[in-house]
Amino acid sequence: MTDLKYPNFAFDITHNAPNSKARLGNLKTPHGTIQTPNFIFCGTKAAIKNLNPDQMVEAKTDIILSNTYHLMIQPGADIVEKMGGLHKFMGWDGPMLTDSGGFQIFSMGHGSVADEIKGRNKGERGQSLLKITEEGAKFRNYRDGSSMMLTPELSMDIQRKLGADLIMQFDECTAFHVDRKYTESSMHRSHRWGDRSLEQFAKNDNGAQAVYGIVQGGVYDDLRKESCAWTKNGNFFGTAIGGSLGGSKQQFYEIVELCSKEIHQTRPVHLLGIGAIDDIFQCVRLGIDTFDCVSPTRAARHGWAVMKGVPGNRINLKNAKYKDDETPLAADYDIKASNFYSKAYIHHLIKAQEMLSMQILSQHNVYVMNLLMRDIRKAIAEDTLDACEKEWRCL
Amino acid sequence: MTDLKYPNFAFDITHNAPNSKARLGNLKTPHGTIQTPNFIFCGTKAAIKNLNPDQMVEAKTDIILSNTYHLMIQPGADIVEKMGGLHKFMGWDGPMLTDSGGFQIFSMGHGSVADEIKGRNKGERGQSLLKITEEGAKFRNYRDGSSMMLTPELSMDIQRKLGADLIMQFDECTAFHVDRKYTESSMHRSHRWGDRSLEQFAKNDNGAQAVYGIVQGGVYDDLRKESCAWTKNGNFFGTAIGGSLGGSKQQFYEIVELCSKEIHQTRPVHLLGIGAIDDIFQCVRLGIDTFDCVSPTRAARHGWAVMKGVPGNRINLKNAKYKDDETPLAADYDIKASNFYSKAYIHHLIKAQEMLSMQILSQHNVYVMNLLMRDIRKAIAEDTLDACEKEWRCL
Repeated sequence: MTDLKYPNFAFDITHNAPNSKARLGNLKTPHGTIQTPNFIFCGTKAAIKNLNPDQMVEAKTDIILSNTYHLMIQPGADIVEKMGGLHKFMGWDGPMLTDSGGFQIFSMGHGSVADEIKGRNKGERGQSLLKITEEGAKFRNYRDGSSMMLTPELSMDIQRKLGADLIMQFDECTAFHVDRKYTESSMHRSHRWGDRSLEQFAKNDNGAQAVYGIVQGGVYDDLRKESCAWTKNGNFFGTAIGGSLGGSKQQFYEIVELCSKEIHQTRPVHLLGIGAIDDIFQCVRLGIDTFDCVSPTRAARHGWAVMKGVPGNRINLKNAKYKDDETPLAADYDIKASNFYSKAYIHHLIKAQEMLSMQILSQHNVYVMNLLMRDIRKAIAEDTLDACEKEWRCL
Repeated sequence: MTDLKYPNFAFDITHNAPNSKARLGNLKTPHGTIQTPNFIFCGTKAAIKNLNPDQMVEAKTDIILSNTYHLMIQPGADIVEKMGGLHKFMGWDGPMLTDSGGFQIFSMGHGSVADEIKGRNKGERGQSLLKITEEGAKFRNYRDGSSMMLTPELSMDIQRKLGADLIMQFDECTAFHVDRKYTESSMHRSHRWGDRSLEQFAKNDNGAQAVYGIVQGGVYDDLRKESCAWTKNGNFFGTAIGGSLGGSKQQFYEIVELCSKEIHQTRPVHLLGIGAIDDIFQCVRLGIDTFDCVSPTRAARHGWAVMKGVPGNRINLKNAKYKDDETPLAADYDIKASNFYSKAYIHHLIKAQEMLSMQILSQHNVYVMNLLMRDIRKAIAEDTLDACEKEWRCL
């Protein structure tokens, strides 16, 4: 058993809502303190798609993440370490998280990340995953076809070299379609991988990073409880809720609610891969402190602007009705992506296949997600979360 | 014969080099005055590829252009006019130029714009060009396949609606492979189109725009002289040198030199579609005031950084030798695209197919071209153009 103190990290819960598990917190890292609930933007391959770090700051971003799996393939952790770590390499000076690499290994080839978590998977393992053993996971490098191995020890060493503030234990993210028997044995293996992750982390701990344990157990209540207990007893700084969250919104929320009750109550809680606005409102009430999702920048690449107070919370600028719409996306936001360009111009850029549309929409979407999280924090403080949700979701 | 005064425009030649036709000038437009020689960046479809207007200003850009041909197809001139004109539509408040649309009609389908001007064309008219008559050019809309017509009158009306400061007469840009007979008859038709352009322009002149006449005549000295005389006698604000510039650098420079002697001596002179650094140095000496080329942003999309003092004036960041190069593109430039990101990071972005590489390299390349033009202006003032060229081109 490791005895990690994480002296350079803290999570202070500053307010608890009276009628839900919603809470406000300050999550302190060596690269700054963020207020929670908050949203972590995906800079998958050491870059937010179409936005530079200054543009992320302009959009009032507090924290971003990168993916270990992609970075171990390109450019490789040794290069990132040699270049001074991920913060310096990509020019982001704020708090940062990396995942363990496991998620992509287990989900690549299955369809989208969101499909996997949300139970929309059609079956069959991805072709890039070759073999899972007690030791770790063997997979095919999608760039050069070579066979690679990721183990808990390697994942922690790679994440050490990358140097993000918040890092994740190595785990297997089981899909919705696998049966209870597989989910259970996989969960137990993930627990053993988690223990090995902590041991490896402790060997080289220099105070710069803090580890999250991950709750697995799929859609099975007893397994989820067992996994929550395991993370609670482990020497983790934070708790992440991972794995399949079921096949419906109701099942998803029930799983999160169950986990939220059973996990360590004063550690920060991250919900992996969730970023829809309705889900964020619901899960904040269930005690989730941080979210991450590729959706803000991915939606932008498909012409969507995330919007406050609009049914569905988004509009598609590809729609011909915007072709002569002189209004900006949001005149009262203090960022040009939102207040300066007309919808007609963005519509034109999309039609003309000008990549500038992605830059503008991405920055707008990031700004809106950060605004959402600020509004949610304010609403929790003032106990007006229901009204805040009604306003945002146009209910 | 029109009698246009262009009261809101001026071109003041402030200095003439003692040993060449190189000169310094101030080119005044309703959206500001630029110093010449200068470089005009291509915002083909009402957007500089991957850069927003603020990023262009950060890179010290003075003037940009857009292409009538692309804009008449998408979004259409009426939409741009309804949205308040091109300046407002795309958010560029400085001087702007549009071409007449002719060049793209005659070159699309032949290969690249540069191939066409520089005599590397392999023959055959582009499939999109359907028919040229005295009236104008009929072509196929590349978006919806419909048949469209562009005439001198329509080109001027479209350019009026777009609202750029500097606009171009309608002309046919003849290719290198066409014979003397075709070049001659096409040139005469372009002259008639130029006269019609001026007449149409005069009908609606509101003082906001000024027209350039275009010298054609291909590689034939007598035709070039005739075309120069025609532009000189026409009521144009400026002169553009267009058409085929031959099959070799020597022929290209000879044509420019000849034209430069024969054209109106105190009007601003634009060289269409030329942007290589060696060509800029040579043509500045021949009296060219402004250049335009897609090369700075196109090169960026292919991984090239334009460099001062490097053989060939560019490096390719795709090259594996940059994979652990911690140095920035240019530590002493006052812009993050050049001084902040390591070559290793840009190399990684390209390998990872992250579009951010294009944003960073595009802004760096724009900055470098603007630096080049500032250095050239300073060198002309100080009569040190040869030394400036040696330093830039690493001779």
